Amino acid sequence: MRSVSIAGAYETRHGALKEQSFRDLIIEAGNGAVRDAGIDRKEIQAVYVGNYAGNEFNGQNTAASLAATVLGLGDKPAIRFEGACASGGLAVRQAFLAVASGQYDTVLALGVEKMNGLDPATTMQIVARGQDQDFEGGYCISGPSGFALNAVRHMHEFGTTREQMAMVAEKNFYHGSLNPYAHKQKEVKLERIIKAPPVSYPFGIHDVSLVTDAAAAVIVTTAEKARSLRKDAVRIMGSGQGGDYFTIAMKDSSTRFDATIRAAEEAFGMANVKRDDVDVLECHDCFTITEIINIEDLGFVEKGKGGPFTQEGHTRLGGKLPVNTSGGLKAKGHPIGCTGVGQIVEMTFQLRDQADRRQVANARTALTHVLGGPGAVSVVHVLQRDE
Amino acid sequence: MRSVSIAGAYETRHGALKEQSFRDLIIEAGNGAVRDAGIDRKEIQAVYVGNYAGNEFNGQNTAASLAATVLGLGDKPAIRFEGACASGGLAVRQAFLAVASGQYDTVLALGVEKMNGLDPATTMQIVARGQDQDFEGGYCISGPSGFALNAVRHMHEFGTTREQMAMVAEKNFYHGSLNPYAHKQKEVKLERIIKAPPVSYPFGIHDVSLVTDAAAAVIVTTAEKARSLRKDAVRIMGSGQGGDYFTIAMKDSSTRFDATIRAAEEAFGMANVKRDDVDVLECHDCFTITEIINIEDLGFVEKGKGGPFTQEGHTRLGGKLPVNTSGGLKAKGHPIGCTGVGQIVEMTFQLRDQADRRQVANARTALTHVLGGPGAVSVVHVLQRDE
Repeated sequence: MRSVSIAGAYETRHGALKEQSFRDLIIEAGNGAVRDAGIDRKEIQAVYVGNYAGNEFNGQNTAASLAATVLGLGDKPAIRFEGACASGGLAVRQAFLAVASGQYDTVLALGVEKMNGLDPATTMQIVARGQDQDFEGGYCISGPSGFALNAVRHMHEFGTTREQMAMVAEKNFYHGSLNPYAHKQKEVKLERIIKAPPVSYPFGIHDVSLVTDAAAAVIVTTAEKARSLRKDAVRIMGSGQGGDYFTIAMKDSSTRFDATIRAAEEAFGMANVKRDDVDVLECHDCFTITEIINIEDLGFVEKGKGGPFTQEGHTRLGGKLPVNTSGGLKAKGHPIGCTGVGQIVEMTFQLRDQADRRQVANARTALTHVLGGPGAVSVVHVLQRDE
Repeated sequence: MRSVSIAGAYETRHGALKEQSFRDLIIEAGNGAVRDAGIDRKEIQAVYVGNYAGNEFNGQNTAASLAATVLGLGDKPAIRFEGACASGGLAVRQAFLAVASGQYDTVLALGVEKMNGLDPATTMQIVARGQDQDFEGGYCISGPSGFALNAVRHMHEFGTTREQMAMVAEKNFYHGSLNPYAHKQKEVKLERIIKAPPVSYPFGIHDVSLVTDAAAAVIVTTAEKARSLRKDAVRIMGSGQGGDYFTIAMKDSSTRFDATIRAAEEAFGMANVKRDDVDVLECHDCFTITEIINIEDLGFVEKGKGGPFTQEGHTRLGGKLPVNTSGGLKAKGHPIGCTGVGQIVEMTFQLRDQADRRQVANARTALTHVLGGPGAVSVVHVLQRDE
């Protein structure tokens, strides 16, 4: 396998972006990544796109062919990848594999979702189609109620508290307040999070991720080529994908996501990096409990200790393992197909020392993690400054 | 690169299948392929699925995670691929690449679409989202009217006739009449095709592919493992993907599909097989003109000669290059995300000498070809009996 790096990274402002169409977001992100890499776009050999439901949200399917076309790469092979909320992670991973295996030298990986514009009930229905509709979606199991089952069980088994979950949100709102790309750039006090209108016990509205429009893109190329383009390229040290049952009732446990465990095992095995080496990470905080479970599943803390670890402030900027410096899905937002690519962009900024007020000092090794559907698909990447 | 073969193949009956749900189709095809290969499903390491719009047709997105789960492979990585009508071809190609590169030893590639059940106008709207909606779809450019532009130009430049197009349909209906898996198993007389109600000049209703429900699946594995499973495994000699502009107005030509030319070049280059070696092929006859253009773009006849070649009967069973022995998209049907996988199944049957009344004698080398969107994505595979 060849060594693979990220030579360019760009993301649009996240938000409810009335002024920018689906096409506009793709154009801004794709061209931004090309410019950031300083690459001649003729050298891009394929366009890989993560998009969850452009056909329903925007009346436009086949986002990869559209992206290739609007970026002046219409003659290149293009593929759209969909794995619910992990779609963007899949696009980056498949680009990594294509370059690592020698199939292509350079691939543009882009994620996009424009979710705002429909009525909220329709939007939630579209999102819910990323779960098993026959067996569960039709019976009131949605994202919030599904992950609420995880929360309640985690509280029961490990004593995780409502406050600890709220602290995930409070921290991520704080991080988002420092991120000019974030959907919500305002801090929210812990008490307001705890007393917020309920969604599905134990979640209030601030335990839930945002409905966001955005696109992000990265140029994935050989380590050698990346180095020739810029000194501060970011190496993809490891990449992993894990699966787990799509039907919640079939899972072995409610307090862990086996897809994450499998993806992390593959990514760390390939990277030859220890958990202790990781300086900063973005993980899939679709709900506050998910971040707590993620840091356990990824192997940073023992199972059941995610709540106390959060409470002790270790995952906050300045703590020993800053988590979701971008604000995460909670504050940066969760444009479904974009999210996994946006995480890579944020970690690239951190490793290039460009994260401004949310910079983690001397960040050398980073990790990204997405989780799709009811914990059915996970993609993990381990990144390092290419020195 | 490792040698890769197809160890098992299965497709469901094609049709408007009221009795079988989206889930049922996946279960039947996936289990059928496992049984056909005689493989222990525990050896399958990933599930790759082509599906165009399960979220809109069936209220179910994330078809790959669903497929993995219902096939007892929920703990395996699963990815859905979408590239309009080429989605199934992408799933097979990515499975091929994953095995060839050594990433996985065995992948289940499955295609599925259940299109019937909605009102026809809605169904056509969903299909049209595989074209550029902003610039063309909103201005009456649909599948039929878009490909009609190709037909009219081909008639103008090369003297291709209405009759020659009708002959494609007549032949494919005849082939379909011999195929127990086909949606339409009845011959239609040439005169009836020519005089059929118009759709978009020069197409009548019989120049257009069918709206079909079906699933198909293949077990893609190392040539070595395939041989250990069955004597008559089918080798994937070459695989290619080509792209072209998604916006029709941006294309260089109306009488060829550059995506096909690029995909064929890559596939034949890898296969080290000559056009003359090909004994039988399935190509994307979404409209009758498309088959005529395809056999030109694939390099079997000179540009402009596809009509006369068809008229002379060479593409009919018994002719020198039988095309779409299954009945093609025209008679076997066009379940969008399934089509590319179903083609591989049909060619596997031919190469295993199991195509019954539509068997091409001594078929040793076969080709499959799909074309997605307005000629924006093409995938070509060259297959050979593993002797």
